[in-house]
Amino acid sequence: MSSLLPELIKEKKVLLIREIFDEYNIVDLSEIFSELELDEAIFIFKILPKDISAELFTYLDPLHQERLISALSSMEVKGILDNMFSDDIIDFLEEMPANVIKYILDNVPSEHRKEINTLLSYEENTAGSVMSTDFVELYEKDTVEEAIIKIKEQAEIAETVNVCFVIDQKRVLVGIVNLRDIIVAKNNKLISEIMDKNIHYVYTNTDQEEVARLLSKYDLTTICVLNDQNCLIGIVTADDVLDILNEEATEDIHKMSGIVPTDGSYLKTGIKEMVKSRISWLLILMISATFTGYILQYFEDKLSALAILSASIPIIMSTAGNAGAQSSTMVIRGIAVDDLNIKDIFIVLKKELAVGLLCGAILFVTNFIRLYIFGSKSTTFSISFVVSLTITISLISANLAGGILPLIAKKLKMDPASAAAPLITTIVDATSLIIYFMLAIAILKI
Amino acid sequence: MSSLLPELIKEKKVLLIREIFDEYNIVDLSEIFSELELDEAIFIFKILPKDISAELFTYLDPLHQERLISALSSMEVKGILDNMFSDDIIDFLEEMPANVIKYILDNVPSEHRKEINTLLSYEENTAGSVMSTDFVELYEKDTVEEAIIKIKEQAEIAETVNVCFVIDQKRVLVGIVNLRDIIVAKNNKLISEIMDKNIHYVYTNTDQEEVARLLSKYDLTTICVLNDQNCLIGIVTADDVLDILNEEATEDIHKMSGIVPTDGSYLKTGIKEMVKSRISWLLILMISATFTGYILQYFEDKLSALAILSASIPIIMSTAGNAGAQSSTMVIRGIAVDDLNIKDIFIVLKKELAVGLLCGAILFVTNFIRLYIFGSKSTTFSISFVVSLTITISLISANLAGGILPLIAKKLKMDPASAAAPLITTIVDATSLIIYFMLAIAILKI
Repeated sequence: MSSLLPELIKEKKVLLIREIFDEYNIVDLSEIFSELELDEAIFIFKILPKDISAELFTYLDPLHQERLISALSSMEVKGILDNMFSDDIIDFLEEMPANVIKYILDNVPSEHRKEINTLLSYEENTAGSVMSTDFVELYEKDTVEEAIIKIKEQAEIAETVNVCFVIDQKRVLVGIVNLRDIIVAKNNKLISEIMDKNIHYVYTNTDQEEVARLLSKYDLTTICVLNDQNCLIGIVTADDVLDILNEEATEDIHKMSGIVPTDGSYLKTGIKEMVKSRISWLLILMISATFTGYILQYFEDKLSALAILSASIPIIMSTAGNAGAQSSTMVIRGIAVDDLNIKDIFIVLKKELAVGLLCGAILFVTNFIRLYIFGSKSTTFSISFVVSLTITISLISANLAGGILPLIAKKLKMDPASAAAPLITTIVDATSLIIYFMLAIAILKI
Repeated sequence: MSSLLPELIKEKKVLLIREIFDEYNIVDLSEIFSELELDEAIFIFKILPKDISAELFTYLDPLHQERLISALSSMEVKGILDNMFSDDIIDFLEEMPANVIKYILDNVPSEHRKEINTLLSYEENTAGSVMSTDFVELYEKDTVEEAIIKIKEQAEIAETVNVCFVIDQKRVLVGIVNLRDIIVAKNNKLISEIMDKNIHYVYTNTDQEEVARLLSKYDLTTICVLNDQNCLIGIVTADDVLDILNEEATEDIHKMSGIVPTDGSYLKTGIKEMVKSRISWLLILMISATFTGYILQYFEDKLSALAILSASIPIIMSTAGNAGAQSSTMVIRGIAVDDLNIKDIFIVLKKELAVGLLCGAILFVTNFIRLYIFGSKSTTFSISFVVSLTITISLISANLAGGILPLIAKKLKMDPASAAAPLITTIVDATSLIIYFMLAIAILKI
C-alpha cells in the first residue's frame, strides 16, 4: 500500500484516499504517511476529514509533526488542534521547539489555550503531564436517564465514557460510576445510589510511575487526578500507562548499566545525546577503578614474589562482580515494582547470605578442582585453596553489598538504579582484591 | 483496621464485617486478610457474599489460596469458583500443586471444567493463558435496542462491556463495537452499521509480550484472541497487560545480569530457587574468565619486566566492560521494545563507532592527564600513552561488540538478553587485555 499512496495523490483520487484512511488502522497509516514527500503529506492532510487528520497527526513522530505544522495554514492547524484530545496535544507540544509552541498557542481559541497552558505547567513525568481533561462529569442527583443523555452529549469529546465521574457543586469528586452499572440500572435510579464512593485518585504532582503502579495494583482501567483542593481535573487511563511502564522500565535498565536516560528510542537518539548519556558514568567509573589499581600497586611486591597469583585476578574480580550485579539487580527491580523497601533489609541480608554461602560453596569446589587437578604444576594445594576461598568470601560480600546498597540508596532518597548499580562492581572489585591479598599473606606467608 | 478485624471476628459482628468488606478496597483488604489466622480467615469467607469472597480470593497469594482451599468444603469452593472470572481461575490454578488442581476440577460443574481444562492447556505466557473468556457477544443483525438488552443480561458475568464483539453464525468475529457507540446510536440502527471492521486480534499461541506490544502500539483497551479457525474465544484487556509488562521487564532485567528468571517476587522466591537462578551463569562466567587468566599468564614475563603495567589492568578492563554494558543494554532494550532489529545492524555499527570515538577521545585525554601529570614518576610519557590508547581502542571495540552481539543473537533466534548481555564483559575483558599487551610490546618494546 505504501507505494500506492503517491500514485493516488498524483491522480488526485480524493475519494479513494479518504476510503483508505477510513478502512485501515491509523497507526499503520501513520507509518506509511511518514514516508511521503512534504507536498504529498499536505495534500492528504487537506482532503481528510478533520477528526481523522487530527488522529493521524497524533501518531506522527515529532519531526514530521513539526514539518507539517510549519507548512499548514493557521486555520488548518486550528482545525487539527480542535480535534485532538488534550493529553495528545500536550504530548505533542512537549516535543516541539519554543517557536512552534508559541505559534500554536497563538492559533488556538483562548479557552483551549488556558487549558493547554495549565497542562504544560505540570512537571514532566507527573500525573498532571499525562492526564486527559476530557471526561464525562455527572452529578449525584442525576437520574440514570439524565446521566445517559449527558453521556450521549459528551461521548464525542470524552476520552473514555466507560467510567464517569460524579462531582458535587464545588467540583469535589464524590464518586465514580461505571457505564456498565448505568446501563444495567433502572431509569429512575439516582446516580448517588449506584456510584462507587471508593475512589482511587492521585494528585497532579504524583509521579507517573506511581500512577502506573496503582492502576496495576488495583486492576483499574482509569484513575482520577485531583488538584490541591481535591477537585477532579483529569483522568489517566490504563492504555496511556502502558507506554509509561515501558518508558520507566527502559529508564531503569539504562540507569543500571550506567547510562543517563535519554528520551527517544535508540534509532532516534543523536550521537551527541548518546555520548552525553554515557560519558559521565564512564568517567566516574574509570576514576574509581584507579583505586583498584592502587591496591594492585600496593601489593606489587607480593605479586612478583608469587607471579602465579596474578593469573587468578580476573576470575576473582569477574565472579565477585557478577554476584554483586545479580543481587543488586534483583533488589533494585524489587524496589522498582514496590516489592521491597528498607524495612526488608534484614530479610534481604539473610537471604543474600544464604544464597552467597550456597553459591560460594559450589564455586569453591568447582574452582578448586579446576586449579588443583587441571591447573599447571606450579598451582599448589595452598594456592588453589587461597584462590577458591577468596572467590567464596568475595562472592558472599558482593551478594551482601549488592543487596544492601540499593536499599540504603532508596532510604537516602536517591535513585537505587543510578546510585547503586554502576558503583557496585567497582566497590566489589576493590574489596575482593583486598580479600585476596590478605588471604595470600596469611596462608601463603608471602 | 488490621487489628480491628480479629476483634470483630471474636465478637461475631457479621454485619459490621460485611459492611467493611463492602466499603473498603478489596486489594487493601486482601493484604489485611492475609495476616489473619486460618480459622479467622475461614469465618470471614463463610459470612461474606459469594461474589465478594470470590474477588477477595483472587487477590490472595498462592500460599493463602492453597491453605483456604484445603480448609473449605467442596460446596464452598464451588461457590467461589462460580463467582470468579475464567482468567482469574487460571491464574490461580497455575500456581497450585497438582493435587489441588485435581481437587478443584473435581468440584466445578462439568461445563465450567471443560472451559478451565481448555484454558489450562495453553502454554504459559501465551495469549491463551492470560485471556478472559467472559465477554459480551452480539450479532450483526442485532439492533441497538436488542444489543442493549443483551449487554444488560451479560453485564454481570462479562469482564468488560466497554467493547462488545460481533460474530456471525459460525462464531467468526466480524467486528467490534464500543459501548460508547451503542449508547450514542439511535435505537433502531443495526450493529453492523456502527461496528468497526478493523479488528485487532492475536491467536491463542501469540506470546503475551506481543499482546502487550500491540495494545500499547495501537492504544487499545482490549484485543481479541482467536483460535486456528479464526473464531473468537477470548479477550485480553489493557489492565491485564500492565502486570505482564512489569513481569517481562523484570525478566529482561534479570537476564541481563545473568539471572535465570524466576516466577515470584524477591521476598517470595525461596533460597534454593534463588541459587538455581544464579549459579549457572556464575559458573559459566567463572570458567570463561579463566581465559582472561590465561592471557595474563601468557604475558607474565612482559608484566614482570614492567610491573607498573599491571596497575592499569583494572582500569582498562572495567572501562571496556562498562562501555560494552552500556551499548549492549541500549541495543537489547531496543530489541525488546521492537525499536531495533537485524536490518538496523549497520546503523547501530555506525552509531556505536561514532559514540565510541567521541567517548574514547574524552577518556584518552582524561586518562593521559591522570597518569602523566598526576601519576607516579615511573609512569613515563610512553606508558601513559599506551594505557590511554588501550582504553580508547578497547572502548570502541566494546561498543561495537555490545552493539552487534545482541542483534546477532536475535537473528539466531536466541534471546538477546540472556545470550548476549552476561557474556559481553568476559569477551571484552579478554579483548582489551590482548590489545593492551600488543600495544605495550609494539610501543614500549618490552
